[in-house]
Amino acid sequence: MTATASAGETAGGPAGGTAGGTTLSRAVRVLEAFGPDRAALSVAEIARRSGVSMATTSRMVAELVRLGLLERGADRRVRAGSRLRELASRAAPAGLREAAAPFMEDLHAVVGHHVHLGVLEDARLLVVERLSAPDAVVDASRFGGRLPAHASSGGLVLLAHAPAEIRERVLAGRRERFTAATVTDPARLRALLADVRRGGFAFCRGHVHPRAAGIAAPVRDARGRVVAALTAVVPNDAGARAQVSALRVAARGVSRALGARPA
Amino acid sequence: MTATASAGETAGGPAGGTAGGTTLSRAVRVLEAFGPDRAALSVAEIARRSGVSMATTSRMVAELVRLGLLERGADRRVRAGSRLRELASRAAPAGLREAAAPFMEDLHAVVGHHVHLGVLEDARLLVVERLSAPDAVVDASRFGGRLPAHASSGGLVLLAHAPAEIRERVLAGRRERFTAATVTDPARLRALLADVRRGGFAFCRGHVHPRAAGIAAPVRDARGRVVAALTAVVPNDAGARAQVSALRVAARGVSRALGARPA
Repeated sequence: MTATASAGETAGGPAGGTAGGTTLSRAVRVLEAFGPDRAALSVAEIARRSGVSMATTSRMVAELVRLGLLERGADRRVRAGSRLRELASRAAPAGLREAAAPFMEDLHAVVGHHVHLGVLEDARLLVVERLSAPDAVVDASRFGGRLPAHASSGGLVLLAHAPAEIRERVLAGRRERFTAATVTDPARLRALLADVRRGGFAFCRGHVHPRAAGIAAPVRDARGRVVAALTAVVPNDAGARAQVSALRVAARGVSRALGARPA
Repeated sequence: MTATASAGETAGGPAGGTAGGTTLSRAVRVLEAFGPDRAALSVAEIARRSGVSMATTSRMVAELVRLGLLERGADRRVRAGSRLRELASRAAPAGLREAAAPFMEDLHAVVGHHVHLGVLEDARLLVVERLSAPDAVVDASRFGGRLPAHASSGGLVLLAHAPAEIRERVLAGRRERFTAATVTDPARLRALLADVRRGGFAFCRGHVHPRAAGIAAPVRDARGRVVAALTAVVPNDAGARAQVSALRVAARGVSRALGARPA
């Protein structure tokens, strides 16, 4: 089809070029014939759904079965193989926001109020994604906004796992007090960060606003580094603590979607 | 390579058969070159990692980019495209146990004790997957074991969403009493099932054993049908209720992995 393709055909045999393009696009059409509600198909059904001829579909299915991307059952019906999903999830790990989005939606549907995702930038918490509800409790954070790391639950999680020099910079700098509960004393802040590291979450009642409680848990990447904090901001009442487990479970889910292995 | 392939070559051109086999297997090798820790690669790096010649890799990458399975950045480096993951997750939705496994691990890591996955079989809860800890609270369920649907939190979730005739069969039949808290009275059981449907979870303190609390949430498939219950069995103490949100978030995650759309 292109000059490169023709050169390839000459150099490398009939595997690529026009034939390759056609083969790959047909393979994609064959795979697209499957879906959650049509998990098992006969070759005839695949041919009909994909618009690929029976002869070609038949060959294509045989080859995809050989590669493990499709599986053939005892009834001769064909299903997408688990190797297809493995290949895709290994080759295309989701980006941070993409990985977090479904977990944030689930968390928000259950916990309500505010759910956000933050990263550390200049020793502050930067909110990179946020879900809120109209009747939610007051929340000082804004999408794209920044909060001091020492005051917010997400900031504490990130600070707890940050390189020592960033932690020391925050401990040496000016630390704004928002409420009577904001931890600004260096010794108390150090102890709090150690607690957060040990416990695997931060739970802050009224550190930024007396009426709000922040709960945050770390999100790790494929190398195990803490790259973000998943936070819920809920009313500062007796029910707040009950959301800690949900935050921790969701943050582990986001980490997995980023390729992290469970600890 | 096979008789079918040769016939195909004659009938359908050079798209399939030996050429197709080779093209597809090379495409898989190209995709396998990527991984969580090597998300962006140059064509030369892909060729080296996949063992495919530069010329063929170059053509293959161009074709995969055209199909959206790979993406090329401004720096000419190549990444796996989000379409690859979309294609795979649509074509190969996970089976129930496979979908549930990572969420069960996360839940178990955070909540501890027992986490199980159950389905309704003959109006009873059948435990199809189970994670436990050595020092966990007493749990009447066993892997592969069955519990009466009216007594267990997972059974109540499944019963709440079961066809009316199954619910009526349980309401008409003999209902074993395990503890003083087991709900056996038909009117109370009907009210409890309505609560479970409305609330989206079952929370049962001591219904099977006085020392254990069961918390369960529904798992839905791509058609929105409740196909399983995700359950945690924890000590029947003041902390039990704090696990409800975690169960609900995890059950939504399993549902998503099965292709369910968020409600």
